[in-house]
Amino acid sequence: MISSQHMSNTPITTTTGKKVLVSGIKSTGRPHIGNYFGAMKQYVEMQHEYDTRIFIADLHSLTSVQNGSELAQATLDLAIDYIAIGLDPEKVTIFKQSDLPEVTELGWIFNCITTMPYLMRAHSFKDAEAKNKEINVGVFDYPMLMAADILIHNADIVPVGKDQKQHVEFARDTAEKFNRIFRGDGKSCEPENALFKLPDVHIIESVETVPGIDGQKMSKSYNNHIPLFSTDEELKKLVMSIVTDSNGGKPMNVYNMHKLFRDETYLEKLYTKNEGKYKILKEALLEDMIAFIKPLREKREQIAKDPDKVRNILARNGALMREKTHALMYEVRKATGLIV
Amino acid sequence: MISSQHMSNTPITTTTGKKVLVSGIKSTGRPHIGNYFGAMKQYVEMQHEYDTRIFIADLHSLTSVQNGSELAQATLDLAIDYIAIGLDPEKVTIFKQSDLPEVTELGWIFNCITTMPYLMRAHSFKDAEAKNKEINVGVFDYPMLMAADILIHNADIVPVGKDQKQHVEFARDTAEKFNRIFRGDGKSCEPENALFKLPDVHIIESVETVPGIDGQKMSKSYNNHIPLFSTDEELKKLVMSIVTDSNGGKPMNVYNMHKLFRDETYLEKLYTKNEGKYKILKEALLEDMIAFIKPLREKREQIAKDPDKVRNILARNGALMREKTHALMYEVRKATGLIV
Repeated sequence: MISSQHMSNTPITTTTGKKVLVSGIKSTGRPHIGNYFGAMKQYVEMQHEYDTRIFIADLHSLTSVQNGSELAQATLDLAIDYIAIGLDPEKVTIFKQSDLPEVTELGWIFNCITTMPYLMRAHSFKDAEAKNKEINVGVFDYPMLMAADILIHNADIVPVGKDQKQHVEFARDTAEKFNRIFRGDGKSCEPENALFKLPDVHIIESVETVPGIDGQKMSKSYNNHIPLFSTDEELKKLVMSIVTDSNGGKPMNVYNMHKLFRDETYLEKLYTKNEGKYKILKEALLEDMIAFIKPLREKREQIAKDPDKVRNILARNGALMREKTHALMYEVRKATGLIV
Repeated sequence: MISSQHMSNTPITTTTGKKVLVSGIKSTGRPHIGNYFGAMKQYVEMQHEYDTRIFIADLHSLTSVQNGSELAQATLDLAIDYIAIGLDPEKVTIFKQSDLPEVTELGWIFNCITTMPYLMRAHSFKDAEAKNKEINVGVFDYPMLMAADILIHNADIVPVGKDQKQHVEFARDTAEKFNRIFRGDGKSCEPENALFKLPDVHIIESVETVPGIDGQKMSKSYNNHIPLFSTDEELKKLVMSIVTDSNGGKPMNVYNMHKLFRDETYLEKLYTKNEGKYKILKEALLEDMIAFIKPLREKREQIAKDPDKVRNILARNGALMREKTHALMYEVRKATGLIV
């Protein structure tokens, strides 16, 4: 595959003919059902339509996790989580960002065509700097590494949350700049000479906000979350502790959580029939939640029993990604003059 | 070599037993005799004492040269220049920075343990920013890539000009920080657990300033320079155009240039005997200069006839450097948690 593409002068296309989807996931500890319904599930749904490449962003995580064994464990856990919820490792390329270290080389090249004031406009930098002037350079340079993460695959589509939209815009700008400087006349670049494709952003439309057990948005920082891989006992404890509104009618936060697991036609009847009977409704929710979560949890336990198998999947996919991006990196090095 | 060191947990030592000297050279166009006597010559003199590793800093050059064919040519020319002046490619590892792309990976890791205010203290950044707010991120991040360039070799010694001393200090700080965070308890690191060695700086004591043909310091920006690989005719034209002081005695700028090529006992006699005879003294200088430069120029022409041989040297040495730094990079990845 490499040899035939190696000298190609045009943007690399995949052999599958499918459009390439790229996304990075960062470990924020154990996922909860808010993470699942808000984002994780969408990857599973999109996996068959695209040549899906999902990287565990361990190099990005280094900006915040500076403990080797902690980061390694989080990376492995995240891979297991995603395979457990249904990412098919035979169909989706789930890999570790650091197994494609060429992104750091490409990130450096992008640094050289990006100005300080431009990068300082990044929301992520401004937010972080507002909190602490002593932020690390990785937080500042993050958008350039992310541009490399995306562009190295010649991605067609990048699904992100609304708050991450700017990163894809940075990647588009950077692709355009590179094409113009190194494959054009500095001012513009003929489309047929472009090396990088400008990726499209796909904003993940979140399902309605998943409520936490206190009725606020589910979030680890509010400590109102239900871990995705909870045991039945944990689920019972958490569901039964849901704070219900006291208007005596339909408990909306129970209902809103319930509708993640059941269709609304069924629920309307159930909640009308049991108006005001909070305990019964919570028990119904618990039952449906267990029916959904138990198989995920059991699948996760099964996968976690053989971490070497997961390591092998990651290693194999990392090697595959190096192979698939090799031709493009060759063109990058040639265009920039790194090949003499 | 890799396999035996691969699992080593201690700083990597070279197989030669010699101390490791690392230095980067950046192409600033055709070298002149001021460059030669000010710096280039010192590499030749140091090459046998150390395990000398000299990289042509093409990744750094990208911060200013953004034209592929120009950069590639400059890199090749620089390699030829250094081999012509006597760097022995069988003894010194001269290689292209970009052929050891692991430095960008290590540079990224260093970004994550370096704060913005710290890096903003770099002289190179402050100088550049004073001239132009729109400097690129590469200029800002330069010291972290340079720290990686040095530390990836576990260098013992880094020869630099006075103005570059801070870069080695940054590398030392970064080594210490990495050891402390990833191989210590965050506050300190036991010497036996240190992954990176703290390199010593070796300030290159410049010979007396080499004067240009107008008597000022020789510099391309003053356009008073004598290219190192000039033809005899070019040398004649340049030497005969030297502006001499009109005090009627010993023309000091001619003398100061002359002493680069001849010992001073000889010169004292010559200049006393020919006091005031500027033409004769310039002709004597020209003769000695030609005797020195002609063999260098001819050697350079010879080498330049076979650029593929130079390309092969660079490629072979790049591969050697990847092999020699492999064990250390494995330890870096392990310590930071990039290996799961």
